[in-house]
Amino acid sequence: MLKVEHIGIAVKSLTDSVPLFEKLLNTECYKTEEVTGEKVNTAFFRQGETKIELLESTSEDGVIAKFVEKKGEGIHHIAFEVADIEAEMKRLQAEGFVLLNEQPKQGADNKLVCFLHPKHTNGVLIELCMER
Amino acid sequence: MLKVEHIGIAVKSLTDSVPLFEKLLNTECYKTEEVTGEKVNTAFFRQGETKIELLESTSEDGVIAKFVEKKGEGIHHIAFEVADIEAEMKRLQAEGFVLLNEQPKQGADNKLVCFLHPKHTNGVLIELCMER
Repeated sequence: MLKVEHIGIAVKSLTDSVPLFEKLLNTECYKTEEVTGEKVNTAFFRQGETKIELLESTSEDGVIAKFVEKKGEGIHHIAFEVADIEAEMKRLQAEGFVLLNEQPKQGADNKLVCFLHPKHTNGVLIELCMER
Repeated sequence: MLKVEHIGIAVKSLTDSVPLFEKLLNTECYKTEEVTGEKVNTAFFRQGETKIELLESTSEDGVIAKFVEKKGEGIHHIAFEVADIEAEMKRLQAEGFVLLNEQPKQGADNKLVCFLHPKHTNGVLIELCMER
């Protein structure tokens, strides 16, 4: 893994949370993007080489809506940039980690992504991502 | 804020989680340190310019023990490096954020740190930190 590419934070409303994080991080949101496959709207902020990604559900049955309902707003996942996502998926499977998607799928920000099951990572939802 | 200095992850046992994260991140833990003021043992891994910090409670009444009891293992906080911690504390207070300690205090890794109340940051526990 190369670096922490982004940290995903589940929020109820980008309308409320984008200005809040602009004040908190003292930097402007530079991009918003809808990811229809994940049923989310996203908003991005830069912090050094890492991005902060706010996630708002676009649907009551989306994973972010369910997360917020169960746990409240908060940190949802950590995404690590990898050089070769398929090689890294194989390496992690061989180490006993469980992939939530067997093939890389389309994520936000022009990335191919794969999630690891948090049961095997001390409750931390880990995303692998690679620029397309 | 300059960068994501580290991401803190609450775990039950460093003995179990250090080897797990070494496999996950494909890098060795390069440092462990006890922070008596916070009642934690910490273990560090490098990922680009950011560190992953595992936190194990040294006491049943410590904040990490309480976190794990209430929410289970998982991501505990995000720490941002700042150039001038007192100036940043003042800026954030003026923006309406609430500091959990009014004066910078000693954290792990030779840092002065200050935490923000997660009620005002969408449930995210934020740490400011500055090299001593």
